[in-house]
This record gives sequence, structure tokens and C-alpha cells, in this order.
Amino acid sequence: MKTFFDCIACFVRQSLEAVRITTPDEAVHEQLLREVLRVLGEMDMRQSPPAMAKRIHRLIREMTGQADPYRADKERFNRLALDVYPELKARVGRSANPLETAVRLAIAGNVIDLGVNHHLTDEQVHEAIDHALDAPFETDMAAFGEAASSAGNILYLADNAGEIVFDRLLIEQLPVEKVTVAVKGSPIINDATMEDAEATGLTELVKVVDNGSDAPGTILDDCSEAFRRRFNEADLVIAKGQGNYETLSEAGKDIFFILKAKCPVIARDLGCSVGSLVLRRSSCAEAVAGKGNDYARI
Amino acid sequence: MKTFFDCIACFVRQSLEAVRITTPDEAVHEQLLREVLRVLGEMDMRQSPPAMAKRIHRLIREMTGQADPYRADKERFNRLALDVYPELKARVGRSANPLETAVRLAIAGNVIDLGVNHHLTDEQVHEAIDHALDAPFETDMAAFGEAASSAGNILYLADNAGEIVFDRLLIEQLPVEKVTVAVKGSPIINDATMEDAEATGLTELVKVVDNGSDAPGTILDDCSEAFRRRFNEADLVIAKGQGNYETLSEAGKDIFFILKAKCPVIARDLGCSVGSLVLRRSSCAEAVAGKGNDYARI
Repeated sequence: MKTFFDCIACFVRQSLEAVRITTPDEAVHEQLLREVLRVLGEMDMRQSPPAMAKRIHRLIREMTGQADPYRADKERFNRLALDVYPELKARVGRSANPLETAVRLAIAGNVIDLGVNHHLTDEQVHEAIDHALDAPFETDMAAFGEAASSAGNILYLADNAGEIVFDRLLIEQLPVEKVTVAVKGSPIINDATMEDAEATGLTELVKVVDNGSDAPGTILDDCSEAFRRRFNEADLVIAKGQGNYETLSEAGKDIFFILKAKCPVIARDLGCSVGSLVLRRSSCAEAVAGKGNDYARI
Repeated sequence: MKTFFDCIACFVRQSLEAVRITTPDEAVHEQLLREVLRVLGEMDMRQSPPAMAKRIHRLIREMTGQADPYRADKERFNRLALDVYPELKARVGRSANPLETAVRLAIAGNVIDLGVNHHLTDEQVHEAIDHALDAPFETDMAAFGEAASSAGNILYLADNAGEIVFDRLLIEQLPVEKVTVAVKGSPIINDATMEDAEATGLTELVKVVDNGSDAPGTILDDCSEAFRRRFNEADLVIAKGQGNYETLSEAGKDIFFILKAKCPVIARDLGCSVGSLVLRRSSCAEAVAGKGNDYARI
């Protein structure tokens, strides 16, 4: 997916929200804003949105001297998610279709995206859970289940802190011994890092690796060689969230994208309405047939 | 009201929407976007939002060579408003409190603001009418009625095309022979100009003047001397919409601001929630007492 110009205004908003976390000093806000406008004005707008966001958020971290501005937010949503986890796990257990219920809840967790909604409240997370359990969801769940069963190994690309607890509900429905979860290599917005995987106990359930990158998506060229090898060797990739869709939707690989469509640009690209639940298999026929997994060809 | 940094992202969005009206050529969109980012990055961010918008939209008109990109939209909403006018006029006539009903409908018309919502549908206008007739509206309507009755002359600062037909419903409840309506001096977004006042028949009901400016608000220094004199001599000013509030909220003058709070920045400044109906008297005690009407002191 190529960057659409609509994303530029969103980066300006996001930058201001991010710098406000770090300091109440309006002079710093203004300085950052001017620098972001300058950088955006000169940037290659054909990069994926996560590639641009990576650059903008690096700038914010450098200018404010704060390596992880969203740390407190990440901890807050990890706690919130852990609080609701037991009840949601029981709900999956009681469901007539546990896999579908788990996918729905994993999508609910995708609402914890502070790049899209910086002012997310606890109540909105609870609303997203209720919505995801009831909303229309036309998808080929059987194909997803079969792909997971037949894969020799599964790479699960995590998205945000807090959200990874919801992912756990889904991972527990997969052949868990075959799953590796990948988190980000270092802080970017509220994306989950190894610190979050450990804090939420995910590392006790499955193997967790980091991808070596600080992009809010999966830019393969920006990831570590070890991660790229793992990606290349995976029989099945499950990619959570908008950022992973934006960066991998054209990668020649068998990928199931799981996300909530939270912005008009993504919704238009997916051909759905904003707020929709999405489980979408990548359309690379070669990859689906198991012949296109060579990273060099991506 | 000073510009808040939050408005900058909105200008970027607005610029892209405006340039897309003029051409489908993405190369032009990108060129405009880069230029707008450059200008915003170097702009005095302490100007009012309409002062900044004026500069941005001039740039769009210059770069695209289109003097009035929103002309078709303005005509569309003039027609829509004229279509519903007879029914709404009857509704005001049947109302137990015609003045309040007319104010509510004038506020409904304020939804026709393509700077805020470029993709406004006919259905949304109808929804805004229904909402305005039912929504909570705690205001001192009697004080407004008394101010209008006792004023020797009333200056009504119009906002957008289409909306001016809704304003007509309110003007008909005022001592109409004392009312002068001011429209913008030349095209800016979908703000009403003399062309719209004539097309909707407003010029047959009241005296209509233009303010000599192409700012989407009332920047007195940017208006014609004739308009400034009229503003200065008005006993009462009724100012429609966010742009007029942004530019006149601190003018030492007896002004009733009538608007729908459509964005978080305005809502915060007014101390209300987004979507609220607003009839707010300026808080200049001197002016309210009739002693502060000297423009030189503003």
C-alpha cells in the first residue's frame, strides 16, 4: 500500500499529541511542529505511512530527549487488558466457535492504537469489546483455521501494548507450540516491545522475538536479518493492525491480516467501512500455494 | 481567540480537500501539499485560524488558477436550503417561541461548513435540522430578543452559502428594517459572497453589504473601511459561525455569537461539547453597557 496524501495531516496531529506527552512547554510544541512540517514538506510521500511515522517519531524522541514517550500509556493498557483477560478467556471457552470469538477479541484489542486515537478511554476499550463480539464479520474462518493447523510454523506480528493480551486469547486457539510472536525492536508510539511481552506474561506462553526495527509496522528492509530469516521461513504469517497491513499488504507471502479499520484511508484500501472487523488473507496466489516464500523475491 | 496548534493539521487536511476539487492530478496535489507544509512551517502560529486559512486558500487559488473552487458546492447548498426553507418557515410560524426556533434553525444551517466537513451530505444537513430543533439549548433567549428590539441598527455577519437561507429565518424574527447583513468580499472556502445573497433572494429582504475581505471570519484590519465604519456604528452585532467567533471573540463590542461547535478546539474555548448549539454574548461588560463601541479601542 502506497502512502496517501491524506496521511500527512494525521502525522501533524500525531506529532503534536506526542510532544505534548513529553512536556507542557508550548515553545517546544511549536518548535517540534515547525520541524515536523519542514520534514514532511521535503519527505518522499510514496513511502508507506509507517516509514514516514518512524522518521517523525524519531524526530520527536530526539528533540524531546525522551526515548519512550508512550511508556506510561503502554503500561496503563497492559494493565487494563490483563484485568479483562480472565473474563474474556472464559468467554472464548464458552463460545460455540472459540476461534472466531478469539479473532473477534483480538480485533477488539486493535482499538488500543494511540497513533489513531490518542485520547482512548477505558470505556472505549470496553465498547470495542462489545462491538467486536456482536458486529457483522463475514470471513472465511475455516480457511484461517486450516491454514493455522497445516502450517509448520506461524509468525504472529504483534501490534500494540495492551493489544498483545487480546492477541494471547487468539494465540491460545492456535497450535501454540508452532507460534512465534514478533514485537518491535525499540519504542515507537504505543507499539508493543519485549518489555510489554514480558510484563504481560506473553513470553511464558510462546517464543517472543523482536524485529529489530522502530517502525510502527513491518518494513522488512528495516528489520534485523534474524527477523527477516524468520519471516522468510514462516509457513504462515498473522499480521495485526493497520501498520502491518500498510507495510505488508503487497509482500508476496501467505499472510492473514487481522485488524479493525480505524481510518478512512485504510478502510478505502480494504473496501470496507471505518470500524469494520477485518480478517483478510493476502491475495498473492503464489504465496498462498506455498511457492512464494522467498524473501529475495518480495 | 489565539490559534491553537491543533488547527495546523486541519489546514493540511483542508488544503488537500480544496486542491482535489480543482484537479484530479496527483502531481498538483503533492506540489500544493508541499507548499502548504512549507508555508505553515514558517507561519506566525499566533494569528487567528481564519487569518492562516486566508493565506492557505489564497495559495490554493493561485496555484490552481481557480478563483472560486467551491462555487458548485455553494450553489448546491443554496438550492438545498431554499428547498427546505418554506417548511422551516412554517415551523417557525407554528412555534410557541418563534425566536428560539429561528435561532435553532440558524444554528442548524451552520453545519454547512465545508472547511470543517468537506464531505457534507444532504442527509447530514437534514439530521442537523432535526438535532437543532430537539437538542438542549440553555441560553438567555430573552436577553437576545431585548438586545435586538432595543438596538437602533443590527449588523448580521453571515457565514456560509446555504447557511444564509437558514439565517433568513432568524432575520425575519428580528426588526428586519434595522438589519444589515455582511457577506465576504470575495470567495473563500464556501463562505457566502454577494453572489449567494443575490441567488438566495436575501438582498430582496434586507440590505446586504460585503466586508471587503477574503478571510473566513471577520478580521477587521483586513476589511474595507466602509465595513469597519458600519461595524463600529452597529448597536448590536450578530456573528454567525466558528470563523467569526475565532476572529471577534475578543473584540470589545456587544456581539451575539451564534454557531454550532463543530471542532474540539472551539468547543474547548467555549466550554461546551462538540455538536453543542451556541448563542453566546460577548463578555465585554463595557460593550454590553453600550460604552465600548469605538473601533479604535478594539
